[in-house]
Amino acid sequence: MIVITTKVVSFAEGRLIEADDVDVTERDQRVADITGIDPREVAVIYEESDVLGAIPIAEIGEDLLLEHAVDPDVAQEALDDVPSMLVTERNGRLCTNAGIDWSNSPEGKMTLLPEDPDESARRLRKEIEARTGADVAVVLSDSEVAGPGSMDLAVGCSGIEAIDANFGRTDLYDQPKMGGVDLVADELTAGSALLFGQADEQVPVVVARGLEYEDGEGVPNSSGIVRRGLRKSIELTARFKAREWF
Amino acid sequence: MIVITTKVVSFAEGRLIEADDVDVTERDQRVADITGIDPREVAVIYEESDVLGAIPIAEIGEDLLLEHAVDPDVAQEALDDVPSMLVTERNGRLCTNAGIDWSNSPEGKMTLLPEDPDESARRLRKEIEARTGADVAVVLSDSEVAGPGSMDLAVGCSGIEAIDANFGRTDLYDQPKMGGVDLVADELTAGSALLFGQADEQVPVVVARGLEYEDGEGVPNSSGIVRRGLRKSIELTARFKAREWF
Repeated sequence: MIVITTKVVSFAEGRLIEADDVDVTERDQRVADITGIDPREVAVIYEESDVLGAIPIAEIGEDLLLEHAVDPDVAQEALDDVPSMLVTERNGRLCTNAGIDWSNSPEGKMTLLPEDPDESARRLRKEIEARTGADVAVVLSDSEVAGPGSMDLAVGCSGIEAIDANFGRTDLYDQPKMGGVDLVADELTAGSALLFGQADEQVPVVVARGLEYEDGEGVPNSSGIVRRGLRKSIELTARFKAREWF
Repeated sequence: MIVITTKVVSFAEGRLIEADDVDVTERDQRVADITGIDPREVAVIYEESDVLGAIPIAEIGEDLLLEHAVDPDVAQEALDDVPSMLVTERNGRLCTNAGIDWSNSPEGKMTLLPEDPDESARRLRKEIEARTGADVAVVLSDSEVAGPGSMDLAVGCSGIEAIDANFGRTDLYDQPKMGGVDLVADELTAGSALLFGQADEQVPVVVARGLEYEDGEGVPNSSGIVRRGLRKSIELTARFKAREWF
């Protein structure tokens, strides 16, 4: 099984945009003013995804981020460049900034996610099979904000069932267990990220051997779950928390 | 490096509670009525953690969960047993139901997380060194709800820096990069979960070899970040989303 960072796949597919070529609308400028995100990036994010909300990353996490900085000046510069992130839904997945990234991109360019990451994984898988005869699963990986840091998660896959279909098994005591919906492709990707590194390591591919997995196509569409989940969770919480809000 | 499921550590530390011995207050009963969670579990959750909110798991994810079920009847029973989860903060970490679990517990008992999971990891590490002379990092792992499924994440650790202190490095193009805050311990735990399994596999320990990591103690305290993050993100989102709420 092969885990590949989306960055190299995006490069190979020409998914780079010259920032100065982007048309910025009034709405893009307004959202840029409020969030501190480059208006040209806002424009591309809206084009690439549905925007659900925003996270003021710098305001929330500045202390923790500077504490874990190699060079405080470079870190402060990064925070000034990206004070907030938009929460977006793209290809049925929740992500930040539609997966758009300026880092490790040539000056003045943004790198977009592959147009259809599942399809990219499928194509790479076929190409590997055609060239080598090997039938390997392919997972595309991208870094995402997760709690107090970031993790790599699966954004596209082919040849592996992304979710372990084990819900409704019984446990050791023969009781129905609320589990077995393991995000296998995400767990594999997260583990692979230990070998990628995130800045200038230039390791874009990890080969994983020995893991048993089911055949399948595509990362799960969590779109409905995330939207409904946010709304319904706020509703349920309000029913018993209204008077003692956190 | 050794990754151990909290379940066996909790067992070893006697962190089991007889449900019938739990005193239920009026508040616990009210929250139980609203959320469908067993009132005795609600009582223990409030004792073990700060309650921030609730997620109506069954209402949100029923379709997806039944689709990934081995046995639809057992799955439906699990959903009826656990229709919602409380969002809690415990030892500075965000988790659901304070990490309390009925599954793989003897009938009528709940398993609680180790009282101080970082301390448990430290103790296990010392004990391993005392008995074998080997200086290994120890990470305690627990399953958590994550998007459309669940993943194992680190709830305690010793001998490994949980966050990669690389924020503020430059990328290949010498630009400051918004990254390098990799949740190393979480990524390691997620990868290990591929070998644990979640129901009756009885594999509670994974030995990981060959990974380079920094020395450190404890999982990051994300408490302030999560609370402030939720509040500030809702505020920022409201500033540009108020009229077109999702």
